[in-house]
Amino acid sequence: MAAIPYRTALVVGVGPGISASVARALAAQGLKVGLAARNIDKLSTLAGEIGAERFAVDATDPAAVAHLFEAADARIGEPDVVLYNPSARAPGSVAEIDPEAVRKAVEISAFGAFLVVQQAARRMIPRAKGAILLTGASASIKGYPLSAAFAMGKFALRGLAQSTARELGPKGIHVAHFIIDGGVRSEARGRLDPPNRPDSTLDPDDIAQTYIEVLRQPRSAWSLEVEMRPWVETF
Amino acid sequence: MAAIPYRTALVVGVGPGISASVARALAAQGLKVGLAARNIDKLSTLAGEIGAERFAVDATDPAAVAHLFEAADARIGEPDVVLYNPSARAPGSVAEIDPEAVRKAVEISAFGAFLVVQQAARRMIPRAKGAILLTGASASIKGYPLSAAFAMGKFALRGLAQSTARELGPKGIHVAHFIIDGGVRSEARGRLDPPNRPDSTLDPDDIAQTYIEVLRQPRSAWSLEVEMRPWVETF
Amino acid sequence: MAAIPYRTALVVGVGPGISASVARALAAQGLKVGLAARNIDKLSTLAGEIGAERFAVDATDPAAVAHLFEAADARIGEPDVVLYNPSARAPGSVAEIDPEAVRKAVEISAFGAFLVVQQAARRMIPRAKGAILLTGASASIKGYPLSAAFAMGKFALRGLAQSTARELGPKGIHVAHFIIDGGVRSEARGRLDPPNRPDSTLDPDDIAQTYIEVLRQPRSAWSLEVEMRPWVETF
Amino acid sequence: MAAIPYRTALVVGVGPGISASVARALAAQGLKVGLAARNIDKLSTLAGEIGAERFAVDATDPAAVAHLFEAADARIGEPDVVLYNPSARAPGSVAEIDPEAVRKAVEISAFGAFLVVQQAARRMIPRAKGAILLTGASASIKGYPLSAAFAMGKFALRGLAQSTARELGPKGIHVAHFIIDGGVRSEARGRLDPPNRPDSTLDPDDIAQTYIEVLRQPRSAWSLEVEMRPWVETF
Repeated sequence: MAAIPYRTALVVGVGPGISASVARALAAQGLKVGLAARNIDKLSTLAGEIGAERFAVDATDPAAVAHLFEAADARIGEPDVVLYNPSARAPGSVAEIDPEAVRKAVEISAFGAFLVVQQAARRMIPRAKGAILLTGASASIKGYPLSAAFAMGKFALRGLAQSTARELGPKGIHVAHFIIDGGVRSEARGRLDPPNRPDSTLDPDDIAQTYIEVLRQPRSAWSLEVEMRPWVETF
Repeated sequence: MAAIPYRTALVVGVGPGISASVARALAAQGLKVGLAARNIDKLSTLAGEIGAERFAVDATDPAAVAHLFEAADARIGEPDVVLYNPSARAPGSVAEIDPEAVRKAVEISAFGAFLVVQQAARRMIPRAKGAILLTGASASIKGYPLSAAFAMGKFALRGLAQSTARELGPKGIHVAHFIIDGGVRSEARGRLDPPNRPDSTLDPDDIAQTYIEVLRQPRSAWSLEVEMRPWVETF
Repeated sequence: MAAIPYRTALVVGVGPGISASVARALAAQGLKVGLAARNIDKLSTLAGEIGAERFAVDATDPAAVAHLFEAADARIGEPDVVLYNPSARAPGSVAEIDPEAVRKAVEISAFGAFLVVQQAARRMIPRAKGAILLTGASASIKGYPLSAAFAMGKFALRGLAQSTARELGPKGIHVAHFIIDGGVRSEARGRLDPPNRPDSTLDPDDIAQTYIEVLRQPRSAWSLEVEMRPWVETF
Repeated sequence: MAAIPYRTALVVGVGPGISASVARALAAQGLKVGLAARNIDKLSTLAGEIGAERFAVDATDPAAVAHLFEAADARIGEPDVVLYNPSARAPGSVAEIDPEAVRKAVEISAFGAFLVVQQAARRMIPRAKGAILLTGASASIKGYPLSAAFAMGKFALRGLAQSTARELGPKGIHVAHFIIDGGVRSEARGRLDPPNRPDSTLDPDDIAQTYIEVLRQPRSAWSLEVEMRPWVETF
């Protein structure tokens, strides 16, 4: 099995789920990892575990994202792999949800991703190398009722992924969009498999395995979009 | 041919193209029409022609959109039909486009649509009647290179359309999303058919015809999404 | 409202549902209509009602379809509008369904459509005019469990529609594919609206209305695909 | 890296491209491999190289496919992994292509796949284990002009994949559909990278790598559909 052809990674939006698992998997492959989140206190255990650097960032603030990448350049080196994971939902009837919550949700799910992709692209284009990973959801391809803001953000993220994959692919940069089509297992949120339905939630470590394999794809056969769901899912 | 079952319409984002043609077609069907745009000076000729009211609005400002609907309620009556048409492109390499232009483009293409849909829904839900029309583009379903912001906005608009169609349909409100898959004919922009390719651009009056027919659909057979393109298009 | 720019129509696969309603609507627009089915005895009432000619055909037999069009040419004139409606389901577990039933189902849903499209194209290309209408279903875009044969046939029909729309559009022929996303109301099959859910099944006359409007679309703004579903549908 | 949790594989439709590469990759993972094709003479070199058994089959003949699996059961053991790869194109104008060539093309691309999936499912359901891999193409999701038969077959295959994934997933069987979105490199066919565009064709070994990784996915996070294309592709 070929090694991953990258040496540094920046994971933006680190909670206890997918991004922590991907960060661990990247570290296990030998990459130097940076972890970025609004609140870096929550990252100390994970950072210690995998020897990662921590960065505080408001991903929806252009100046803050620019500063994040400058700090990452200095402390872990220009990132070869960049993962954007944050999203926000603002659920409720379209007639009632707070407009500012919707604006903010779209900024977190999509505009922040643009800012991170932009900084990543600026560093990767000159080197003609790199990978940008974007985490989608069921709502990336289907707009569910009472969930307009989440649909707007995740659809927009998918549009960003497609546009930038087509721009950056021929420049040697692999953009990949993952549709996580189901609930992610989480002890912290009490989302666990019912006893009679093993593996009916997505294990974040299992998701991370596929993220890693996409990084390993040779450039003659890159995937732009990969969806994943539990075996029992009636989707 | 049954008449359109609506009496008032509010068209948001009126330029010389699709929305002007839809406004004319709605007026021709006997509806009282309101025209809303950032700059209402440009609307005077059209307004005069079809007897429409004009409203100034910044569609990305929640208070301004709320005020628009209050003014429309007073001057044309609560709108039965609402069309949202604005979009913005911010073209360029993802590495170079100005972040604030991207933020603004997404707000114009999608967040403003949310604000308008919200105000429309608040009025239509109690009456269990109404139609909301949203104008998409080729970029609604394919993210083109060097066009990340436009893809983000138009994808997000489609997510909004799907989510709200599923929420509002069972409340009696018809949400329809139109994918205009090609260049719209425009004298103002010099986009005209080449002499040897008649009808190779979308005539906005032809587009408007289909918008009107969607309004006429009985509720047992509503369309959520309708795409249109010129006969010669190699899409 | 402009008249439909066609004078003759051939409706293949006439049962009591969509195709009968479209045939009636076409006749009401002044078109001379031919009705084709395996068993023409069932067509006598409808044919009498709308002054249509009847044709017996096995739509999966190339020679029979060729003969159908020759007979139609002679009795109603070369058809300007051709609708293909037949489908077959062969439901059951993929492990258990009879292979010959699957083969036949795909032939009825898709291969027969190809045969009809081919004969239509041969007549329409020289005149650079005509419309071909193909009836899809929810299964055209989502493969449901225990319904492999229906998914295969309806997916194949959509592939046929896309390929031929792209080939024939620039030759002046409008190919349109309709996704009927829900149960069609049918007294014969006992599929009626529950009393507390009016219009929760698709009324075939309502479906036909949209078929007719697609025929009326000017060529600068043709739809290839139009989906319809009841207002209450949670799709 | 976990081993692939399967021991035997049957590869149907072996030419010099994708299926040969997948067969080699499966053998390299320690699986016992069977190779099936219409003409097994062409398989002798590959079979010798990877220690595979050869089986002659007409994949569109139900009895022949049933017999293939019986022979495979006896000679390599019930297959845990089954790959279906054959397709046929029958290119040309829809007005001119030979109907029997179209019928046969759809049978090769899709009906044969059904027959193989059926036999695989009968063996895998009782053991609640197995993987079925289906090879799609650009034409699986877009019907190109002058290519109706290929679109019909590949769309149908995708419908089969979706339907059976939803039926068989909860029974422990992983159905995966691969969209190969570009030209596959082939010395035999003279399809090679232009000197100035390295890796602009899909290397079948690179494709095979992703097939193998999909087999390794834990069941909490299975992919149904994975697309691949060269980095330089403007898709």
